[in-house]
Parts: sequence; structure tokens; C-alpha cells
Amino acid sequence: MHRERFYTLTASCPDRVGIVAQVSGFFAQHKGWILETSLHAEPDSDSAPGRYFMRLEVKADSLPFMLAELRERFAPLAAELNMDWRITDSAVKKRVVLLVSKQEHCLYDLLARWQAKELDVEIPCIISNHDTFKGFVEWHGIPFHHIPVTADNKVAAFKEIQRIFEEVKGDTMVLARYMQILSPELCAAYPGRIINIHHSFLPSFVGAKPYHQAYTKGVKLIGATCHYVTADLDQGPIIEQDVIRVDHSDTPDDLVRYGKDIEKTVLARGLRYHLEDRVLTHGNKTIVFR
Amino acid sequence: MHRERFYTLTASCPDRVGIVAQVSGFFAQHKGWILETSLHAEPDSDSAPGRYFMRLEVKADSLPFMLAELRERFAPLAAELNMDWRITDSAVKKRVVLLVSKQEHCLYDLLARWQAKELDVEIPCIISNHDTFKGFVEWHGIPFHHIPVTADNKVAAFKEIQRIFEEVKGDTMVLARYMQILSPELCAAYPGRIINIHHSFLPSFVGAKPYHQAYTKGVKLIGATCHYVTADLDQGPIIEQDVIRVDHSDTPDDLVRYGKDIEKTVLARGLRYHLEDRVLTHGNKTIVFR
Amino acid sequence: MHRERFYTLTASCPDRVGIVAQVSGFFAQHKGWILETSLHAEPDSDSAPGRYFMRLEVKADSLPFMLAELRERFAPLAAELNMDWRITDSAVKKRVVLLVSKQEHCLYDLLARWQAKELDVEIPCIISNHDTFKGFVEWHGIPFHHIPVTADNKVAAFKEIQRIFEEVKGDTMVLARYMQILSPELCAAYPGRIINIHHSFLPSFVGAKPYHQAYTKGVKLIGATCHYVTADLDQGPIIEQDVIRVDHSDTPDDLVRYGKDIEKTVLARGLRYHLEDRVLTHGNKTIVFR
Amino acid sequence: MHRERFYTLTASCPDRVGIVAQVSGFFAQHKGWILETSLHAEPDSDSAPGRYFMRLEVKADSLPFMLAELRERFAPLAAELNMDWRITDSAVKKRVVLLVSKQEHCLYDLLARWQAKELDVEIPCIISNHDTFKGFVEWHGIPFHHIPVTADNKVAAFKEIQRIFEEVKGDTMVLARYMQILSPELCAAYPGRIINIHHSFLPSFVGAKPYHQAYTKGVKLIGATCHYVTADLDQGPIIEQDVIRVDHSDTPDDLVRYGKDIEKTVLARGLRYHLEDRVLTHGNKTIVFR
Repeated sequence: MHRERFYTLTASCPDRVGIVAQVSGFFAQHKGWILETSLHAEPDSDSAPGRYFMRLEVKADSLPFMLAELRERFAPLAAELNMDWRITDSAVKKRVVLLVSKQEHCLYDLLARWQAKELDVEIPCIISNHDTFKGFVEWHGIPFHHIPVTADNKVAAFKEIQRIFEEVKGDTMVLARYMQILSPELCAAYPGRIINIHHSFLPSFVGAKPYHQAYTKGVKLIGATCHYVTADLDQGPIIEQDVIRVDHSDTPDDLVRYGKDIEKTVLARGLRYHLEDRVLTHGNKTIVFR
Repeated sequence: MHRERFYTLTASCPDRVGIVAQVSGFFAQHKGWILETSLHAEPDSDSAPGRYFMRLEVKADSLPFMLAELRERFAPLAAELNMDWRITDSAVKKRVVLLVSKQEHCLYDLLARWQAKELDVEIPCIISNHDTFKGFVEWHGIPFHHIPVTADNKVAAFKEIQRIFEEVKGDTMVLARYMQILSPELCAAYPGRIINIHHSFLPSFVGAKPYHQAYTKGVKLIGATCHYVTADLDQGPIIEQDVIRVDHSDTPDDLVRYGKDIEKTVLARGLRYHLEDRVLTHGNKTIVFR
Repeated sequence: MHRERFYTLTASCPDRVGIVAQVSGFFAQHKGWILETSLHAEPDSDSAPGRYFMRLEVKADSLPFMLAELRERFAPLAAELNMDWRITDSAVKKRVVLLVSKQEHCLYDLLARWQAKELDVEIPCIISNHDTFKGFVEWHGIPFHHIPVTADNKVAAFKEIQRIFEEVKGDTMVLARYMQILSPELCAAYPGRIINIHHSFLPSFVGAKPYHQAYTKGVKLIGATCHYVTADLDQGPIIEQDVIRVDHSDTPDDLVRYGKDIEKTVLARGLRYHLEDRVLTHGNKTIVFR
Repeated sequence: MHRERFYTLTASCPDRVGIVAQVSGFFAQHKGWILETSLHAEPDSDSAPGRYFMRLEVKADSLPFMLAELRERFAPLAAELNMDWRITDSAVKKRVVLLVSKQEHCLYDLLARWQAKELDVEIPCIISNHDTFKGFVEWHGIPFHHIPVTADNKVAAFKEIQRIFEEVKGDTMVLARYMQILSPELCAAYPGRIINIHHSFLPSFVGAKPYHQAYTKGVKLIGATCHYVTADLDQGPIIEQDVIRVDHSDTPDDLVRYGKDIEKTVLARGLRYHLEDRVLTHGNKTIVFR
């Protein structure tokens, strides 16, 4: 089950002839062993010129130098291609901070995956506006911060959350059914780094009580959406979605219950894509190299 | 494959103790052999008192009288229970008029089912605003009416459609990707009898070019919705929905192509439920006894 | 979210005219308020005469007597109809014993549901052939029994498991990825009361390492099956199944990972149906009144 | 909707460093504009060394030479990499011969797609062991051959089918619910060129009457499998599969009816992958570059 150490390059640049040849040529000239390659050409549209997206995994010990030098040597080619790019190291675990409220399903699900090393990250702390899961989280050896959020203390509360996230050197913030709308400042501070699970198949049923909205509308499938958080409520780039069938005999409580199974699965999948550097954003959309 | 003749009772009434006992007792006292029973109690809500929905299939020749007498004998009980009710006869084929435009997928799909008697109805005629499928329809022995619809002749065109529908004694009108918005008069004339297939997972992407809307939004699943037509565009009671997975590599044309497979399947399923008297409406929602 | 106390009747009997009328008449005569009714007529086949299956929920306080008297009064009618029947009480929680091994996903999932009262049962103890989850289980306040199973002690181990199950008055035993084949004696002792989750879409890939079998075969979907345990390995009546899409890029480890999400969901759904008395068996098949 | 002319390279070779660099370098040096690239590295296993699979679409008019010269210039690199390879031209339509029997659903479905140019191929003829669809096929302007198959004439019948397939220069033979087992000679003559739709989720329910087998087993989902035909009945490489949910109330006839919707969709998807050169085989498995 253990995979060898590898580096992951994710990059996008204006489309032109020869991008793949140049990038794969760079690695080939250093005998880099490519484990996985994903490519996508987004064609010209009325609003934007064509753009090329790529993700490569290269075996770390196949290269004759370390990550720092890889980055240094790759930079000139990236500059020539006018690339947005980054290279990550599978040996450096991402640091993920969870924000939860009083619902257990996403929290249990993520901690089960973390326990089994399926979710192979550091969780430096978990933050909640309630103390419901303090004992459960601490039993797992993870620090728990109870930061109540009220109408009066919102500014201070979100500042404190940001302070903690910085202090623990968080890479990614996950709203695992956190039930609070983040401040615009917090959203703006971490674009593409805050992940939410919304309990509807967006763009249907934005906002509060989506299962009750779905019940009132009489839809025959309900869903959930994992997306990046932006200042625009429930409108950020969609990473993953799924649905489940319901019928007339299901009450709003039944929809909530079915929905929880979709929410936790969709959040786990979307988070995994993000942590494995499989998600690139393009305007308000995502390219997901599964 | 051939099923014996049966009568189908569909009914709804205010909920109270003993409805099932009284209705099933009625049939038992006449030795009626019940083939299938479906029941649903919609509980009290803020907006409406509880209501009971039922559908029964009873073997025709198990009863000691014919349909007319069955209706006559059942009427007093139905009145006592304050029921909306109807009884249909499996030996009387429904008469279904299809409205199509220039897209072939739903038309071919429905005619294949009709040929195989899977869709066991009369199709007295097919109406289109284009003559694209005239030959194909007529080859099947079905009359074809070409009624162009322009900005100028809309009123007259929809009057003519209504005239034909009346003339052929149509039971159900099916918009099999008809691509025209019916007149309010036509919608009002046949509540619960006109079925549309909309090419999105409603309530997302109402109106024109839903696949392009879906592409722009970057959703990860696209869908289709079969619903009753009301004067309120794409807002009528939903009968059936389904979705299919797409990703960033799919162009709007790909979405259109994937969508066609969902559209024809969802329309066929929804239409079948309707024709088998499995769909009861309750406000703007449906009970579907599958 | 809290539902009122109700009794659930599940029954099957030879099909004939008037069963529903008699049973619903019985409840109506006592002013019993029926919350939910599910009916199924299994038609005559070459191997067996037609049989009728039913499930009714009746509001407890709508009846003028308690459960014991309800059973006593219903018995003569049941005898007349030659019924297999039982009536359960929503106020009496079922007692569920979990058997686990070293995999965490089903255990975390079921305990999350139990914590949230979505799975509204007593868990008198959890048994494992490893001590991996001792601390986790005990943190939840649930007794944990570590009963190693080796080639040499199988008979004794399964006797001990049976002894504990009897001692805690277990209703249902759940093999939550237990990874051991139960003794024929244990299987025979609790027909329809032991539930397993098998990690394939049965009848494909019976036995060991089904995901590796699926990988070798190159199937495009993998699945999981929740079924009653019988002495015939992986052949008991199927309660619930589901699948997920995979492709050529997925390794056996990926299939294991995807599979875990299906396993826990399918087990939870199947177990819920069982605990709510929604599953009736008929030969080696199930009727599931969802 | 119209796409520009392009060439499609499909290739596989032993895995080693630099394959992508060399192949993409070849196209870049000639200013070839790559529209789509798909890559897959099959790792070393106990039974076989690692192998690399690729598919590239290159815009025809971006290259300074025609297809014949492209093949000639690419050949030395392919030889150096020890490649199995082919290059096809989007301007040359594939020639697809359909074999049908008395069931209409796959035939109507494929002809609808062909009419709409969604299935953009030549259909030089359709062959059947019954004359049921003679008129329907001929109405579409496609020659129809009625070749009855009996216990006595099998050898001659399949020889005649092969003769016609050769005469019309067929590329691909599609068994669209043909219901006859091809002769071993015919299977052997066209490896990877005969596509079948089997009406079960293989490897479950091989052989005859799979829906009845599924009914007897009591599975909760039924499916269909599109696969290449080999001499080993229902065992050839799987191209595509899908499933649909069923329950205890569905009769074998219902399963047949639900199954038809899955069959035609799975066949159409699998055939499309094949015709777009998206399917590469590796032993008894497929790589499908969707």
C-alpha cells in the first residue's frame, strides 16, 4: 500500500504548440520517471483565450537532485511558458484544520479516514462553535478549540480562527458542516484553500435549509456539493457533487438523513482531490484530474 | 408477458381512521382480487391537513359486474370519504399525442417502445413545427401534422394543435423535446395531461440552453426532468428526474449528447408512470406509486 | 424529529381474496391510526403458490389496549389467515452486537449514526478478534470483548461469541467487516438475525479478496452487498447492494478505498431496513419495504 | 458542432523513461497541434512488466504533411519504442455492420444516433436472423440481409456473414442483441473488432436468460456489459458496464424492460469509445480513455 516518494507538478499556461513536449522533455533529460500525467486543453472561448492545464507525478529518487533544485531548474521553462505552477512533495504532509459544529457525520467520517491513513495528513487542530465533540476529538490526540460565534462577536471569532490557522501553519481549512458563514476577510485570505460541503446539488437551493427547500419543490433526487469558499455565499468553484434518489414518502427528516451520507462522501472525495493537488481552478470552475 | 385485464383505482381523500379498511372491504365483499396496492399518507402540515393517497389494481373478471357498475357501486363510498377518484380499464388504451421538433432521440425512443408494445398506447397522430420526421412517422403508420410556429401565428398554431388533440380524442399530450412554449390557454385546458421533458435537473437552469448554463456553472452532474406542464414555465409538478456525471473535459456539445440519453430515459419512465395511473398530484408535487 | 410510539406488524401468508380488508378492518374496528402500510403479492410460480407480505405501522396510543392485548386479539385472525407474523414496539430498542476486525470504516460509521440517534438501538457490546479498537469503543461507553480467532480455537471462540450474544440478550449480530467465517452452528442458531457486508456485488466475486478479483476481471463498476448470513458462504438472502464506477487507472488499493465508502453505506442502509422490520424473507430472497 | 479534421494515434509499448517526451517531441518538432492527450502507465505486476498506453489527437492541417507521410515519419520512433500503434483519420468514417434479431431497442437507438450524426459512421448493411426489421432498416436506406440461423446451417450462415462483412469492407461488427453465439472461426477472425452487449453485469449471470437468473438470485441492481467478443462466451474484455436499481416488486418481465434501457445506453457508449479509438486492450482487460 505504501507508495514511493514523488513530486507533483501542477501548472497552467496559455495554450500553444509543444507545451507537453517541453515539460516532459525537461523531466526526460534528467531521467525523471513519470508515474502519472494528466492534461487538459481548455479551448478558446468568447471570454478567454485557450489555456493548458497539467499535473505530473515524478518519482523523487529518479531525479539527480532534490526538490529545491528541481524548482530552480524548472523555473526558467515555466517562465518561458508563462506558467502558474507549483511542485509539492508527497513526503510533506498537508496540514488540515477542520471546522465543525454539532453534526457528527463528516467529523467521524474524516477521522476514520485519518486513523486509517487513507487521509494521510496532519490535523493540527479542530475548531468548533460548540463543545459537543471536545472529548471525541481529544481522544484522537487532536487539540480542540471551542470558539463560540454569536451575532455580537463574529469579527473577533473569525479573527481568532484565522490566528489559530496561521499559528498551526494550516494549509487547508475544511468546513465539515460548520453552519456559520465565514467573514469576507477570512474568505479573501485563503482563496482556493477553504473547502465547504453544501447540503444541496448547487446551484439549486442556495442558503439555509436546502433539504426543506428540496422537499417543498418535490425533487426526485437530492444532492451535496463540495466547493471552494469565496465571499459569494455557496457560489465558489465546484469540486465534486453527487445525488441520491428520494420519493414522495420521504419526510424532510428523511432527506436530512439520506443527505448526510452524500455529504460526507462528497466532502471526502473533494478534499482528497484537493490534497492530492488534483484540482486546478479556471475562473469560477475547476479542472479535477481524477 | 400478457397481463390479464384489470381496473385501476386512483384516489385521494382527507386522512382519517379506516380508509383502507373501507376501500379494501368494498372490493373484498365482491370477491375482487387485488393485484397491487399502493398507499401514502401525507401528514398534516402548516399549510394543509393530512391527505391519503391510494392506487389499487383489481382483476376485472374477479368482480361480478362490469366497469360501469363498479363505478356506480363505488361512488357512495367515495362520496362518504370525500374522495377525488377515478377508475381506468387496462383494456382501454390511452391515446397519446406526441409533439416533436427537429431532435430525434425522444421520438425514436418512444416509437421503439410503442413498436414493441412496451408502450402500450394508441398514438393517433404526431405533431411537429418542422417536417423533419414526416416520412419516419408515416412509415410507422401514424398520421403526421406539420404545424409551423412563428412569432406571428402562435395563437392560431396552438389553437390548431388543440383542435387536433380534441379531434383525435387525445388523453395525454407529450412534449418530446418540442422546443416551443405552449400558450397559457393550452396549458390551462389540460392540467395534469401535458407532459414535458426539460433538459436540466430542475430547479437548476430553468429556460433556454440549460446545458450551456450547466457548462458555465461547472457542475459535475447534469440531468433532465419530466414534469407536468403548467402556465408557469418549467415549474409544474415533477414526475421523474435523473442525472449523469460529466467533467471538465466535456464541452457544451458533449453535455448535449450525454443529456439526450438522460432525457429520453427520464421521459419514457415519467410517461409510463403517468399512463399506468401511478402519478397523483398534491399541490405542486407528485406522489408516484412505482 | 421525535416520532410517536407505534407498533409494527410484519406478516406473510398464502394469498387469497380479502387479506388487506380483514387486517385493516381489524385495526379500523379498534380505531387504530395506521401511519404506514406496505403490501406485496408474490404471484404463483412453478415452485411455490402465491404469498402475501405486509407491514403496517399503527400509532400506539390510538388503540384502546396495550401491546400484549393487541397480540392476543390479533392472533385468531392471524391463525385464520395462516400467517407468519410478529408485532414490535418502537419504544423497545433493538439490541445490536457488532463484530469487527481491524478495519475502521464500518465501525466509525455505525457509531457516528448511533451517537446521533440516527441508529436508535442499544449496543450492549462490541466483539473483535483484534484489540485495535478497544480504546475507541470503550470511549463511547460500550463494553469491548477481545476474542482472538485462530485455526485452533475456532470452535471455542464462536461458542464464546454465542454465549456473550445470549448473555447480553442480543437481537441482531452485525459483521461489520469481521473477516472471519462464522461456524455453521452460529449461522444456524440465528437465521435472519446475522447481517454481513460483503465487499463485492454478489453473486460476482464470492470469497476472499473480491477487489483483487474485480481488478483482474477488469469490471467497470465495483460494489458491496449486505445480506443475511447462512451456512452457505456469501449466499444468504440479499438485503441491499450498491456500486461505484472505477476505471483502468485504479489499482487494487484504489478499489479497496472506493469500496469502503460503498460498504459502509450499504451496510448502514441494510441494517436500518432490518431494524425497522422492513425486511421479510421469502426463500432465499428478501422483500424490503423501504 | 463540427470538429476540424484530426488524426488519432493510439499506441502501447514497454514502459521506460521519456516516452511522452519523445512522442510529444516528434509532434512538436512538426508544429503539430495536439487537441487531446490521454496517458496510462500500467505498473509492473507478477505476470507482466510495466506497459505504457497513449492516445493523441493532432489537428490534421497543423502538420506539414499528409497521413501517409505522418505514418512513415513516425514509424522509426515507434520501432525504437517497440510500439503497437495505429493512426486513424477523422475524415475516414468507420464502417459498422450491425447484427440484430427480433428485439428493437438497440437497433432503434443506434439508428437514431446515426440519423443525428451523433454516431458518425457508415452502416453498409444490417444483418439479421429474422426479417422483422427489414422494412424499418431499408426505410433508412440501409441494405438488409436476412440470414436465418438454424441448428443445421450454422457453419454456412456464419460463413455468409463473414463474406458479407468482407465484401462491404466492415471495420467493426456490432451484436445489437443478436441472440446467436458466433462461430469460433468468426470470433477468431476479428479480435477486438466484434462488440457485443450482454444483458447482465458480468461476470454475474453468464449465458442464457440472465434477467431470470437475476430474479431468482434476488439482486437489488441489474446491469448490462459491452465487451469484445472472443471464442470464450461472455468472457471477452469489458468495455463498459452500467446498472439500474430494481426491487422485490419487479417481475422478470420488469427486469427485462428496465434492462433494455441499460443495454442500449451501455452499447452506445461502448461502441462510441471503440469507434473513437479510445479503447486499448491489455490481456483480457481494456484501457478506456474517455
